[in-house]
Amino acid sequence: MTTQIRVGIVGYGNLGRGVETAIGLNPDMSLVGVFTRRAPETVATVGDSTPVFAMSDLEAGRDDIDVLVLCGGSATDLPEQSPALAAKYCIVDSYDNHAKIPEHFAAVDAAARPAGTTAVISTGWDPGLFSLNRVFGEALLAQGSTYTFWGRGLSQGHSDALRRVPGVAGGVQYTLPSETAIERVRAGENPELSTRERHTRQCFVVLADGADADTVRAAIVNMPNYFEPYDTTVEFITAEELERDHQGMPHGGFVIRSGTTSEGTKQVIEYSLTLESNPEFTASVLVAYARAAARLNKAGDIGAKTVYDIAPGLLSPLSPEELRANHL
Amino acid sequence: MTTQIRVGIVGYGNLGRGVETAIGLNPDMSLVGVFTRRAPETVATVGDSTPVFAMSDLEAGRDDIDVLVLCGGSATDLPEQSPALAAKYCIVDSYDNHAKIPEHFAAVDAAARPAGTTAVISTGWDPGLFSLNRVFGEALLAQGSTYTFWGRGLSQGHSDALRRVPGVAGGVQYTLPSETAIERVRAGENPELSTRERHTRQCFVVLADGADADTVRAAIVNMPNYFEPYDTTVEFITAEELERDHQGMPHGGFVIRSGTTSEGTKQVIEYSLTLESNPEFTASVLVAYARAAARLNKAGDIGAKTVYDIAPGLLSPLSPEELRANHL
Repeated sequence: MTTQIRVGIVGYGNLGRGVETAIGLNPDMSLVGVFTRRAPETVATVGDSTPVFAMSDLEAGRDDIDVLVLCGGSATDLPEQSPALAAKYCIVDSYDNHAKIPEHFAAVDAAARPAGTTAVISTGWDPGLFSLNRVFGEALLAQGSTYTFWGRGLSQGHSDALRRVPGVAGGVQYTLPSETAIERVRAGENPELSTRERHTRQCFVVLADGADADTVRAAIVNMPNYFEPYDTTVEFITAEELERDHQGMPHGGFVIRSGTTSEGTKQVIEYSLTLESNPEFTASVLVAYARAAARLNKAGDIGAKTVYDIAPGLLSPLSPEELRANHL
Repeated sequence: MTTQIRVGIVGYGNLGRGVETAIGLNPDMSLVGVFTRRAPETVATVGDSTPVFAMSDLEAGRDDIDVLVLCGGSATDLPEQSPALAAKYCIVDSYDNHAKIPEHFAAVDAAARPAGTTAVISTGWDPGLFSLNRVFGEALLAQGSTYTFWGRGLSQGHSDALRRVPGVAGGVQYTLPSETAIERVRAGENPELSTRERHTRQCFVVLADGADADTVRAAIVNMPNYFEPYDTTVEFITAEELERDHQGMPHGGFVIRSGTTSEGTKQVIEYSLTLESNPEFTASVLVAYARAAARLNKAGDIGAKTVYDIAPGLLSPLSPEELRANHL
């Protein structure tokens, strides 16, 4: 039995709770504890015996941690935390502001290299597994088109926008991929698809007392950027229905590469996820990449990394010999 | 513009022709030529200007080749050629005798290390991409079941078996995945599936003159190992229909990992291929791994490798900076 990989969780929302649960499913990993900005004694963890520490406990550089899994948000937490913590620890984050990834990578790399740590940034499923499959698809089928569809899934950003509409007391928004569009892509048609043709948006709304349904519906479907570019449906439900039927955080989607290898010879590669819990699955991905980060660091491979830099075998608890003998 | 990767093709059947075509679709690669055991002047290549050399031309160790793509068979060609050529060149092969992969890996590694070459073995789509997705699935969802389904696809081995039945003048066999089984797996049922429940076999047969259809059908469906364990259908067609409708080599399949991340929370990962030409797609995979082999060797990473050892970014013609900026 090899030594366990000792993991710390930084930030304890849905994602942090998912990481805690995922570590429990991986016998080669152990949880050192949760690090939080809240008062530790106020945090109730999933596991009864999970230690909770103040964030400041990380400052000195603890020697009982192999990897930190950063579970904060991309807007303000990770741009600051990832470089700061990579200067002392191996880390994994799920930084998802696509446009600023090169900047984030550079900042984390600059912190990690002098410290001799390994830092995997922007993992999860998108960015992460979907990013991988876009690149696999293009490398394997040099001639073709790549499509990403999201859903059916709960969109946090669009649900927030929905709840800010006057007259809305509560609600959720689901993004749905267009079945017609997916079928055309699967058939190798390589269609040009507009925003409206790719996804539809489905809103479930609880009306505030005295609000007018038609006014609220119009305000939603005409909201620029968020809903106007899509075919959006609005269904009014009761507060009880919202509570009963819409507490899950499902998500998923499809990455499809459709190409030709010779004149008229179609080849289609499809990767899809159907997730009943988006944060729990994202957490599982982070934990597998935490295993890879610890192994890379042990092998002396330091600095910032993305999913593109990490050999898939490093994600598995099995040895290369076991993988070759039983999985190839 | 970086220097092109110079590729040689060893063996020139369907797979070798596919590699020739695939190299033409990848501007960062160039084809040195085809190496064959036949008399070179008797070989007609897909490309008018493709040079054809005798296999013996490889013996001295040519310095105009970065990687050889080995396109021989796993039964007798590759066990001999892969170690022999890895002692002089970087190579990629599609060795697919699953049970003997550890032995093949060891033989190739022993040849490659002292020579300072890099040798990627057992790539293609199964073994290869499907192997990768089995390991990704298990690493990402520690708790769950993995399913591989093949087809709809032409099975070379089963078609050969079919054609050896007395009374059969010609024919082909397609392997079909069970739609019912796939739906159960997608729904997260984690079913135990028997061989008969996973796949069916569909035979198209041209009867020899005077042969009795019922006798031939019975001989096929009762053939041990090949057809008896499956629900097998036999359809009799004319030689013209065989020629007209069954010359393609379609294949594909599904790797599905279905698991839970907490009590009752289902998560499903699905990877699928729908291929109009099995050899052309396999060739495209070999070419992408040839790119990785050349890059690994340039970085000093030598010895035998499998798909598990190769960072996905190495398959792409794009640089790590481009991948991070545009694909993550």
